[in-house]
Amino acid sequence: MATYRYSKSQELFRRAAGVIPGGIYGHFSPAPLVPPSAYPFYTARAEGSRFWDVDGNVFIDYMCAYGPMVMGYGAAHVEEAAAAQRRLGDSTTGAAPVMVELAELLVDIMPAADWAFFAKNGADVTNFAVMIARDATGRDKIVMIDGGYHGTAGWMQAPGHHGVSEEDQRHVVRIPWNDVPAFEAVLDQYPGDVAGFIATPYHIPTFADSQMPADGYWEKIQALCRRHNVVLIVDDIRHGFRLDMAGSSAYFGFTPDLTCLCKAMANGYPISALVGCEALKSTAARVFHTGSYWFQAVPMAAARANLVKMGEINAPQVMLTRGALLLDAMVNIARGYGYELKVTGVPSMPYVRITNDESLMLHQDWCAECTRRGAYFTPHHNWFISAAHTDADIQRTLEIVDEAFKAVRAKYGSAFQS
Amino acid sequence: MATYRYSKSQELFRRAAGVIPGGIYGHFSPAPLVPPSAYPFYTARAEGSRFWDVDGNVFIDYMCAYGPMVMGYGAAHVEEAAAAQRRLGDSTTGAAPVMVELAELLVDIMPAADWAFFAKNGADVTNFAVMIARDATGRDKIVMIDGGYHGTAGWMQAPGHHGVSEEDQRHVVRIPWNDVPAFEAVLDQYPGDVAGFIATPYHIPTFADSQMPADGYWEKIQALCRRHNVVLIVDDIRHGFRLDMAGSSAYFGFTPDLTCLCKAMANGYPISALVGCEALKSTAARVFHTGSYWFQAVPMAAARANLVKMGEINAPQVMLTRGALLLDAMVNIARGYGYELKVTGVPSMPYVRITNDESLMLHQDWCAECTRRGAYFTPHHNWFISAAHTDADIQRTLEIVDEAFKAVRAKYGSAFQS
Repeated sequence: MATYRYSKSQELFRRAAGVIPGGIYGHFSPAPLVPPSAYPFYTARAEGSRFWDVDGNVFIDYMCAYGPMVMGYGAAHVEEAAAAQRRLGDSTTGAAPVMVELAELLVDIMPAADWAFFAKNGADVTNFAVMIARDATGRDKIVMIDGGYHGTAGWMQAPGHHGVSEEDQRHVVRIPWNDVPAFEAVLDQYPGDVAGFIATPYHIPTFADSQMPADGYWEKIQALCRRHNVVLIVDDIRHGFRLDMAGSSAYFGFTPDLTCLCKAMANGYPISALVGCEALKSTAARVFHTGSYWFQAVPMAAARANLVKMGEINAPQVMLTRGALLLDAMVNIARGYGYELKVTGVPSMPYVRITNDESLMLHQDWCAECTRRGAYFTPHHNWFISAAHTDADIQRTLEIVDEAFKAVRAKYGSAFQS
Repeated sequence: MATYRYSKSQELFRRAAGVIPGGIYGHFSPAPLVPPSAYPFYTARAEGSRFWDVDGNVFIDYMCAYGPMVMGYGAAHVEEAAAAQRRLGDSTTGAAPVMVELAELLVDIMPAADWAFFAKNGADVTNFAVMIARDATGRDKIVMIDGGYHGTAGWMQAPGHHGVSEEDQRHVVRIPWNDVPAFEAVLDQYPGDVAGFIATPYHIPTFADSQMPADGYWEKIQALCRRHNVVLIVDDIRHGFRLDMAGSSAYFGFTPDLTCLCKAMANGYPISALVGCEALKSTAARVFHTGSYWFQAVPMAAARANLVKMGEINAPQVMLTRGALLLDAMVNIARGYGYELKVTGVPSMPYVRITNDESLMLHQDWCAECTRRGAYFTPHHNWFISAAHTDADIQRTLEIVDEAFKAVRAKYGSAFQS
């Protein structure tokens, strides 16, 4: 099996480095892709579950644009709704009727939604949630999870990160995941000053295994929030609509006060949403929060069509089932070569790593060998399964996985094998 | 001349109020449109310089989606470039080649740009600029102008606004516009702790006349920033590409360290940019800042095509000339009715008000009478002229302006007349 080369990607990256800080920045930066020479940097086109890089290599895509692609690149139901709205208008003076319809849809499908507010970035709505929590309670402190990610504003980043000031962090209190006594201790330490608790539905730390909620965790957190009048915020930006169409809190059986939605809403069209409970609606109306393109109608039309279609096929269940099919088979193939593949999180957005080598070098090499053969796997971020991944994609991926294990075993011999 | 009615807009707004905080929020909120009954809330379609509301009324649009529309709704050069990129891919895994081309274009046309960074909201890049200033200088204080607007994050909003904490404001120092000694006083008061100075190219306070820079203002501010190693940030989000294709700083003859761009870049496609000087490129590369859809290729392709076309026709000059034509004639018509129309700012984004009545009731009524007849004027925000406003639009607008003055004179008699 010939492996891929990326000369055009690398040439474009050199050009980019001249005029763009870091060449490619943020979560798309190739820096955590090790070795970078195993990965394409620039995408020429994408369709269904696949993308083609600028060198003409094709990949079965297990990053799905880092989450937004959920029903296949160029999915007809989304593109048709977007095109119909685009013929009418996109960014115009005045709101679009579809904004009302989309809000009604979210209120209809999500038990935790009595209202909806639309923006662009995930961080627009995590920021808004925190402002609402502070204004509603008259308090300052925000409790979040150690290693949690809610965007790149000053308060969200870890202390000491570049550009983050001490004041940004002054009212952020970090506690470990799944640690109810730690939350109780914070409530004791700052009596009457905790405005909000924010966390993802389950914990997805960077460079580490995903961690599911312990039995009763969310029930206890919710009860403590209610008792202390703390606003309970779920950051469902990455998980949302990959676990349950009713929201990931419904999947885990609890009801937050505010839920942040984003990536999978519109299959790649740029929109985020905050949905919340009736009691916080008037606060949400008086906290001023807006952006130049937040009333863009095309992403709203795309989101509406996409969420309806996802509901019709129960897309989260499709992704969970296909993901499990793929991952179970991968684990078996790994065992055949003497490797342990550890899968954490849900099968529609699994965090996968080979446990035989603590240095992660073996794992990185294996991801690189898969990518070089056309199954795009990154080593230090959860993957994403879409509803557009076909049986043929899974079959082909398993062949590649097998070849890649053969390649790393040839390279490392019996080192690291169980 | 029959005036418009808005029963379908009002019905939709009632539905919206049930499921969206405030019904329509942010800068699109109808709250400052007085009386609301004079204004449409929902847009059915838009084309060229005009939009049609859900009741079938048509408006010559002087708000231009609050800035993004600059070359006409549905402009062919933008839609064709967007469609071509959309057929290839939009939000995908990996960056798109057009990202490099767009950065190269900005570096080519803007003297203050050695590099470019792309995001979605204007506030994404004002936030990023402040983080870069802090990281580059190791300092905390940000100096801004009283009444300046740079988005809705905590540090940007006025102290005491809902959801804004004291810590958000701790390192924000406000000085009056055009007040160089006030900036010197801040530099004296916080020696070695001023990280950045941020302002719009000229001052556009809400509910008040725009204020141009005094002679030598920017030269002196720039010299003070250089002397004290303060990062000079221009927020060109609203003004950008309506004064000069080389940036509004070029129009005023100075060179900032960082420039924030947004609204007019892509004729309504959602993209913002930070461009800056070589000395800050490595800092920009190490401050982590990203968002779910920031690598979306379609808005980049739209921006590139739009900026090229705007350069070809010198669109800022077209808008300045057409704006002046319209505004001069409006001032004359007003005088004929005994009213003084005061125009501040540049003619491509003028702030207009009738000075005869301090209460602004007369001004509001006049804007309402214009809007009811098809010239969409808001009373307390600058207007926007696009390059798609035709001679016929201007002629028709002047007829409406005349009718509206006739209507308010009939209502108020000789009260307020000069």
